[in-house]
Amino acid sequence: MGYNAEIIAVGTELLLGQIVNTNAQFLAQGLADIGVNVYFQTVVGDNVTRLNEAISIAKNRADLILFTGGLGPTQDDLTRECVAAFCSRSLVIHRPSLLSIENFFSQRGKPMVESNSKQALMIEGADALINEVGMAVGSAFVEDDTAFVLLPGPPREMKPMFTNYATPWIRSFIGDERPLFSQMLKFAGVGESNLEHGLMDLIEGQSDITIAPYAKEGEVAIRLSVKAMNPDEANLKFAPIVQEIYERYSNNLFSTAGETLEQTVIKQLIEKQATIAVGESMTGGRLGDLITSVAGSSKAFKGGFVTYSNEMKQTLLGVTSHTLEKKGAISREVSIEMAQGASRLTGADYSVSITGNAGPIGDEGKAVGLTYVSVVSSDGESHVRELQLHGDRDTIKQRAVKQALFLLWAVINQKDVE
Amino acid sequence: MGYNAEIIAVGTELLLGQIVNTNAQFLAQGLADIGVNVYFQTVVGDNVTRLNEAISIAKNRADLILFTGGLGPTQDDLTRECVAAFCSRSLVIHRPSLLSIENFFSQRGKPMVESNSKQALMIEGADALINEVGMAVGSAFVEDDTAFVLLPGPPREMKPMFTNYATPWIRSFIGDERPLFSQMLKFAGVGESNLEHGLMDLIEGQSDITIAPYAKEGEVAIRLSVKAMNPDEANLKFAPIVQEIYERYSNNLFSTAGETLEQTVIKQLIEKQATIAVGESMTGGRLGDLITSVAGSSKAFKGGFVTYSNEMKQTLLGVTSHTLEKKGAISREVSIEMAQGASRLTGADYSVSITGNAGPIGDEGKAVGLTYVSVVSSDGESHVRELQLHGDRDTIKQRAVKQALFLLWAVINQKDVE
Repeated sequence: MGYNAEIIAVGTELLLGQIVNTNAQFLAQGLADIGVNVYFQTVVGDNVTRLNEAISIAKNRADLILFTGGLGPTQDDLTRECVAAFCSRSLVIHRPSLLSIENFFSQRGKPMVESNSKQALMIEGADALINEVGMAVGSAFVEDDTAFVLLPGPPREMKPMFTNYATPWIRSFIGDERPLFSQMLKFAGVGESNLEHGLMDLIEGQSDITIAPYAKEGEVAIRLSVKAMNPDEANLKFAPIVQEIYERYSNNLFSTAGETLEQTVIKQLIEKQATIAVGESMTGGRLGDLITSVAGSSKAFKGGFVTYSNEMKQTLLGVTSHTLEKKGAISREVSIEMAQGASRLTGADYSVSITGNAGPIGDEGKAVGLTYVSVVSSDGESHVRELQLHGDRDTIKQRAVKQALFLLWAVINQKDVE
Repeated sequence: MGYNAEIIAVGTELLLGQIVNTNAQFLAQGLADIGVNVYFQTVVGDNVTRLNEAISIAKNRADLILFTGGLGPTQDDLTRECVAAFCSRSLVIHRPSLLSIENFFSQRGKPMVESNSKQALMIEGADALINEVGMAVGSAFVEDDTAFVLLPGPPREMKPMFTNYATPWIRSFIGDERPLFSQMLKFAGVGESNLEHGLMDLIEGQSDITIAPYAKEGEVAIRLSVKAMNPDEANLKFAPIVQEIYERYSNNLFSTAGETLEQTVIKQLIEKQATIAVGESMTGGRLGDLITSVAGSSKAFKGGFVTYSNEMKQTLLGVTSHTLEKKGAISREVSIEMAQGASRLTGADYSVSITGNAGPIGDEGKAVGLTYVSVVSSDGESHVRELQLHGDRDTIKQRAVKQALFLLWAVINQKDVE
């Protein structure tokens, strides 16, 4: 039956509903990947009595207990102290973490408040779990056949600690089963349910390979996973399925290595030694932000313009007043002129533009969500897509930038673009 | 001490990490608002034994148990059956719900699968909680002084049922205590632990007002909460504390109404009928994106430039080659020239610029995270801040845009800016 785990998230801010417990989801997925079942998740506040109660209950029913939160410097941070007391262990200083905390303050020329050194404390006899992005060190140890793993609360600290330090530790605790390998296929321009329907025979006819849909805002993915001795064996098993899926969705499958659309496009541009510029209205700079989220994007990204008003569309990008008056700012024609303007001013090989209405109210008598994305290439060729996007302001902006990147990908890869 | 509640979310998809438990957050907030403390949140799968264990533990420690999930038509939906068995009650048909389910299918001309009628079952002797947007009826009843409230899992069904039916029921159960009011104070340019330290006397010396720190990436907040008869009484109680905090942190406290920094700044610009433009390098458009996330920002936001390369800084923003060569792109001087360029080209009253290195590798011999933000106003005044930011690429970008907005806020509000 394998090992079963309980996740205990500690923090009054969770109990008060000030933040969502996304850590539990992340850990549940990570544990599932290494074959550990999660039977219970518990949230408890920064309170010694109730935290002790939660530990005691979990100890009776779980093989592994993972804690998140309560490793920080404040008086409210109690997890380490409670777990240590529960297991009759003391706390000891983890020297490398203390050194790194001291360095942090001395490099900034700031005085180190005494309470910060508390974050270098770990549980006696535990293995230290290194915090690569923050101060609080984690602990992992076994008491009476139960494994205790203490992780920090902030997701940006917790995630790398879990992946890089806790996961190998847990795999060793559960006796190193054959690891699970996975491959993520990413799609654009196709809905999750459409894709699931189109791959139903593969999903249901699965041998030892699990094929599972996996949706995130604006992206659709399929995750293949299999237990294998090594990556080569896993890849050998995946290859025929990947080929079959590619044949069915060649206009949509943009990555077989789990890369984002922006990573894929930037990589392809760099390979072609081609450059890109953007002209954005409704999205306010988000397309540029997304492109520059890719490390190394400076090799391909020339720059961008955010032209929110009609005046700025004319002044900065040279959109003509004639087109603006006749067609309106949210139109196929203005979209193309924006991309042409960005192209002319930067000399980029490809220019991408977005114009539309993100809401909350309609504009020019046009519906909220009506959006035009264009791609103009330096040979003068231009492509436009008209989109009717749905959702709140943020969702519409996000979908617009993804659709603009998808059009760019289609143009670069000579896919069907209309 | 008041009443305390436990939230039990039922569903294997939560345990596997396929979805995030946003219901728990919503319910925790809703319960806090009517003065009910949540001491534990539990997640358990669709499994009779473990669900029974969770009910039994909760019954021993909570005055109210709220369940979400497991009221649907499938075999996996077990909550209603388990709770009924636990309390030795039977299930009875709720006629109005059955009628509405039958209507749903007959109106669409679809055959009604037998299992759907299961969703009209409620617990014997319970009050029905109406489902306005779905099929599964909820139940609320008291057994041995413990209140049981059963709600559906899908948030769009659960939320209206909780707000419109469960909340009045719970308020009646707890004897209509005074509701809790809260006020969120937002700070920038000060760390959470520094702030907590500076307000320790207020936090520890709390009368009936609770003062709790609340941190999100790039923002620091304090939540005041108090029980009162009405909002006016609550505000009267908050006022002297807000005043005291303002006096200590007048250079950091930017909102007393829980608004984000970008909302605050845009609101102030619109009130002054002033406009803004941006010139971004490292952040790639994120500052413009953040500004335009505020509905109505088009009244103040003129537009922006993303100048990633030195060439674009010269061509688009008129940064001089002399300054670029002598000082480098990541410098105080280039930062100011970028803001001046944006100002000249757009005629905005305030122009904000960001230049720096988001990593992952150093540039021009300058450290990853070294960043300059500038604000230039139309009267020619200019302000620059040099920052050494830390974190991964995304974190550095996020901190840079928040710091740029913070500088703009300080300039607009004539705070100490250096």
